[in-house]
Amino acid sequence: MSNLARIRQAAGVLDGVARRTPLLSSPFLDEIAGRRVLVKAECLQHTGSFKLRGAWFAISQLPEGDRARGVIAFSSGNHAQGVAYAARAAGIPAVIIMPQDAPALKIANTRALGAEVVLYDRATEDRDAIGAELSTTRGLSLIKPFDNADVIAGQGTVGLEIAQDAAALGIEQADVLVCCGGGGLTSGVALGLSETRLRARPVEPEGFDDVARSLREGKIVHNAALTGSICDAIITPAPGQITFPILAQRCGPGLTVTDDQALQAVALAFQRLKIVVEPGGAVSLAAALFHPALVEGDTVICVATGGNVDAAMFTRALTTLEG
Amino acid sequence: MSNLARIRQAAGVLDGVARRTPLLSSPFLDEIAGRRVLVKAECLQHTGSFKLRGAWFAISQLPEGDRARGVIAFSSGNHAQGVAYAARAAGIPAVIIMPQDAPALKIANTRALGAEVVLYDRATEDRDAIGAELSTTRGLSLIKPFDNADVIAGQGTVGLEIAQDAAALGIEQADVLVCCGGGGLTSGVALGLSETRLRARPVEPEGFDDVARSLREGKIVHNAALTGSICDAIITPAPGQITFPILAQRCGPGLTVTDDQALQAVALAFQRLKIVVEPGGAVSLAAALFHPALVEGDTVICVATGGNVDAAMFTRALTTLEG
Repeated sequence: MSNLARIRQAAGVLDGVARRTPLLSSPFLDEIAGRRVLVKAECLQHTGSFKLRGAWFAISQLPEGDRARGVIAFSSGNHAQGVAYAARAAGIPAVIIMPQDAPALKIANTRALGAEVVLYDRATEDRDAIGAELSTTRGLSLIKPFDNADVIAGQGTVGLEIAQDAAALGIEQADVLVCCGGGGLTSGVALGLSETRLRARPVEPEGFDDVARSLREGKIVHNAALTGSICDAIITPAPGQITFPILAQRCGPGLTVTDDQALQAVALAFQRLKIVVEPGGAVSLAAALFHPALVEGDTVICVATGGNVDAAMFTRALTTLEG
Repeated sequence: MSNLARIRQAAGVLDGVARRTPLLSSPFLDEIAGRRVLVKAECLQHTGSFKLRGAWFAISQLPEGDRARGVIAFSSGNHAQGVAYAARAAGIPAVIIMPQDAPALKIANTRALGAEVVLYDRATEDRDAIGAELSTTRGLSLIKPFDNADVIAGQGTVGLEIAQDAAALGIEQADVLVCCGGGGLTSGVALGLSETRLRARPVEPEGFDDVARSLREGKIVHNAALTGSICDAIITPAPGQITFPILAQRCGPGLTVTDDQALQAVALAFQRLKIVVEPGGAVSLAAALFHPALVEGDTVICVATGGNVDAAMFTRALTTLEG
């Protein structure tokens, strides 16, 4: 099956499950960007991010016996909630492995979605060993956050929806900016757009631009650090073994924004679109608003990937509106 | 034409103009309310509130010669932005009369949407006299905020969409809670639901429950005060001459919530739905969450009417999540 056919299959599986998120806009944002800005609001997706799509489709594709035994994931963030939500809906067990020092609210939310949370000590314990032990003894299937063809196909339904909505609006050509961590969503969107003249482009935080640099150098390169940005949702060591070749073949050049620009985009999405976006989910909008010269076309489409931000960080973002 | 036929006509005029807003949900909100909670997110409407619907339809129904001369409205809030946006799209002048002490951001936003803003001094000038003078000399048509049959029909498209979406979800019976000022939206929704077993119910802030009391007493009664609630978008002196008979015939009993409950609902909509709702647009959700015993049925539908809230008030709402 072609990549696009697989994404269409995922769209069928996700029909009535994933929310078809709207493309939002505001004349005030258009004015800042100097072109029409459309925002695909995946923060309105169930569990507050696009991650549900890939998790759901990947779980649906497990052989029935494996699926019944349950799934396991390593995540303290959006992927954890996507897997927990999808597993509960499928009626199967989910084990989520998180560091002991993960925010209490994220642990509580993941448990409230029905998952068993296993905590480990980052200093003294080996996460992978704990996961391997649980997988073996309980027969759990690992759902990786991005380097998995079914996860990529699930995330690709975002691209398919964008292609359909853009066609309905008469938009033939545009950059589609995607907040990019390991590249699961970005590669999926690029595949979902493959029969259009829309072009996916990854956006990352400054200093954590492994994907942009990998694309420039034509090979996988790593970030120097893994902490130090407020855009925690999209900080990964490097693009994936499966995602990178797709990104290299299909995406336009990467863009980077500062943490402060991401915060301003969070605030403008609050003020002009009335949506809650986390900093890592707002880098796409930040690139459209603050780097317009690096974008091509009359229209730019930004995927606002998630909205799981705490009150303190959101309040901090809102202070950028004053003065 | 029947009221429902008129709403259907308005839906045709608004097709491709008003955004068809989604019904959002979260298992966390369902748990608080003890039943399924669906939130119609009209904060995601263009201009950040449902007001665009009524303004657009009312302008479309003006005789062509009148329409070309332009429209006038008294408002410092959501109605002003709805009228300004609709008038610009129709290519006609809009004059918005606002008090001099209206928030600078609201004045700037209304001007940015292309309207001419005329300011008056509440202490020394008569708003109605200024409006009458402008209407006469320039031939402007007054677009009232709620006591106008076309405005009611436009707002009624919210009810029509709820009826359609509820049917698609297999929901046959539910209370539909609507944030209520003068009753334009609530009466329109009630009419839009008239061929269903869904029941519109107005929700107001404590101390400003003119509609709930009017419904109980079977006649129009007034609020004792017009200031003193953070729910400014829905503070009006009394239900309208046109809206009240519709409300009396078609709505269930009114509900009231405290300002603090409205703020908590704003915060929970942030945390669980990832939408920005203003306090006056969140009283419906507050009633569902904090007065479940007064609501009937397995499902409750809440209209989140608007999201035009400033950073300071939103930050205040978020503090209710802590501790």
